Amino acid sequence: MTHEITGISNGKKQKMVTELDEFDEIFPELVSYLISSGLKDSETTDACKWFKEVLEYNVPHGKKNRGMFVTMAYKFLVSDPKYEDIRLARILGWCIELLQAFFLIADDVMDDSYTRRGKPCWFRKEKVGMEAINDSIYLECCIYKLLKHYIKGKPYYIYIMELFHEITMCTVTGQCLDMTVAPPPGNIDFTNYTEEKYRAIVKWKTAFYSFYLPVAIAMYMAEIYDESSHDCARTILLKMGEYFQVQDDYLDCYGDESIVGKIGTDIQDNKCSWLVITALHKANDEQIQVLKANYGSTDTEKVAKVKQLYKDLDLEKSFKDFEEKSYQEINTLIENNSGHLPKEMFKSLVQKIYKRNK
Amino acid sequence: MTHEITGISNGKKQKMVTELDEFDEIFPELVSYLISSGLKDSETTDACKWFKEVLEYNVPHGKKNRGMFVTMAYKFLVSDPKYEDIRLARILGWCIELLQAFFLIADDVMDDSYTRRGKPCWFRKEKVGMEAINDSIYLECCIYKLLKHYIKGKPYYIYIMELFHEITMCTVTGQCLDMTVAPPPGNIDFTNYTEEKYRAIVKWKTAFYSFYLPVAIAMYMAEIYDESSHDCARTILLKMGEYFQVQDDYLDCYGDESIVGKIGTDIQDNKCSWLVITALHKANDEQIQVLKANYGSTDTEKVAKVKQLYKDLDLEKSFKDFEEKSYQEINTLIENNSGHLPKEMFKSLVQKIYKRNK
Repeated sequence: MTHEITGISNGKKQKMVTELDEFDEIFPELVSYLISSGLKDSETTDACKWFKEVLEYNVPHGKKNRGMFVTMAYKFLVSDPKYEDIRLARILGWCIELLQAFFLIADDVMDDSYTRRGKPCWFRKEKVGMEAINDSIYLECCIYKLLKHYIKGKPYYIYIMELFHEITMCTVTGQCLDMTVAPPPGNIDFTNYTEEKYRAIVKWKTAFYSFYLPVAIAMYMAEIYDESSHDCARTILLKMGEYFQVQDDYLDCYGDESIVGKIGTDIQDNKCSWLVITALHKANDEQIQVLKANYGSTDTEKVAKVKQLYKDLDLEKSFKDFEEKSYQEINTLIENNSGHLPKEMFKSLVQKIYKRNK
Repeated sequence: MTHEITGISNGKKQKMVTELDEFDEIFPELVSYLISSGLKDSETTDACKWFKEVLEYNVPHGKKNRGMFVTMAYKFLVSDPKYEDIRLARILGWCIELLQAFFLIADDVMDDSYTRRGKPCWFRKEKVGMEAINDSIYLECCIYKLLKHYIKGKPYYIYIMELFHEITMCTVTGQCLDMTVAPPPGNIDFTNYTEEKYRAIVKWKTAFYSFYLPVAIAMYMAEIYDESSHDCARTILLKMGEYFQVQDDYLDCYGDESIVGKIGTDIQDNKCSWLVITALHKANDEQIQVLKANYGSTDTEKVAKVKQLYKDLDLEKSFKDFEEKSYQEINTLIENNSGHLPKEMFKSLVQKIYKRNK
């Protein structure tokens, strides 16, 4: 367990409670609240039992970085925060984890994926199937039920509610761009696979909800509402999100499945991944023909040929270079673009993802 | 076109503008607004073009009763309403139509349906497929974008926003009950097919969003916030919703496809329909065996046997009886349960659905 930091004190081994422990501790309470109203009504008992399983299977088993970013950012924004507000920051962090789970269930159906977070995708479970779509919408509904229960009455209630609406729209737009660019497997057409399109997909599909959302929530909780501060934060955080997604694309192919928790399918799914974009950039005409002939197919031999080509082009090296360059750029952005916001807040976020392997 | 009422005046044929015409007139404006912000940003242009098609294919081609109920109810609640408020009532009506389209796209994928509103289901279009899931979420996002743009600043903004959240949760719960009751085709088990379960499914899956939602929106617009008035309205409207769903189940099997606009698949999908519930109630042991052997299969011969059994049991007659009885009950409820709300409002809603054939 990576999150249990063990220290030595008075000659005894002592377990130190980490932020992840405290974050995890809240989840069962949220589940109880979410299903309690439905359990009271005998008509909806069966649905509640089902939804409890949906919550427990799909929400708490990720890395939970997004969720924990809220508390992390909030502690930088408010000096001497009250316990009750830290608790609210954690609950709002769980709302991001719910949003994430909502997207992932739906994405896995759309991508016809097999595994997620080291387990079968929810829709792959025999008793679930396409009902997973309704379950994903349920998780989205939970966000607003929690917001109403825990922060209605706070000055930032409406801001955070509208923020969730807007960020959901951004993510849906990114998902659409992603699918519009990649024709269905079989129809290989790389004309749209440009760095420009790639950046747009990543920004809309991932960066808004993964990086801007948690920090923006913390900012609203700290009653920072002004547009210019949000603009500053957004600029830095979207750049961070881009770097994060390139890592994700890299790990889809080069990551250790047992650590990443899923089997990559970007090559099979004809995805507009950073790897294929970079390959197209570095390849000669002959190699481009190899890519065209083999990308976007579930045939294992074809997948192997694409992976071999990636090796020939030394995309590992390209990725390491990109990682270094991005790290510098993000730090420069933080130095020049933080406005009134604490630079340390952004820096600690970068540290959480720099050179990650999962 | 049923909605063009033609009158004779001064010897000339004159077209009278109906509420449906006025309602329809607003839709293109909403589409323009919804996609305008995305079109300004070259990054998202492709997604916006796609979403425009999603909106135009899926939203404006239903009966639009739910959407028009808002304006209809509002006119009963406010004497001498301003044009601007009528316009807002129509826009909020379109928000219900968006909610409906969001559910229908997702339902059609889950039920593996073929047609909807006389056209192929959206996910059946070759270029769409499972991307339909993302498109359905897009339509949901549009609701909140419209609410923010058109009613932010009104005293009822937050009430209506929370109402949409809550009603979405009700509908998702109903969908879950529906799927929990019906095992996947092949596993016939009628133990859960009781009238009690049926009523619960219908209430949660259909009645809240189809009947309570439009009237509740009109009530909030008229600044009727008190719980007791909403309780009165809910009691009457959920009963109306139950009656409406029984009609829907009846039309799934006995309706004219060219009028209803979809091919019924309830028998094939093993649905907990009013027809099968009533059949189980009326059938002898032998007939129950016939049902068990043939319900929930796509085999056309088996479907025909179920339909023949329905005929033998004279379910048409049972339905006509139910229709009469419900009509009386709803009218009694209106007489006794309207509180301070105008009885005429509820009566005009009943008239819209009584003995409908589509």
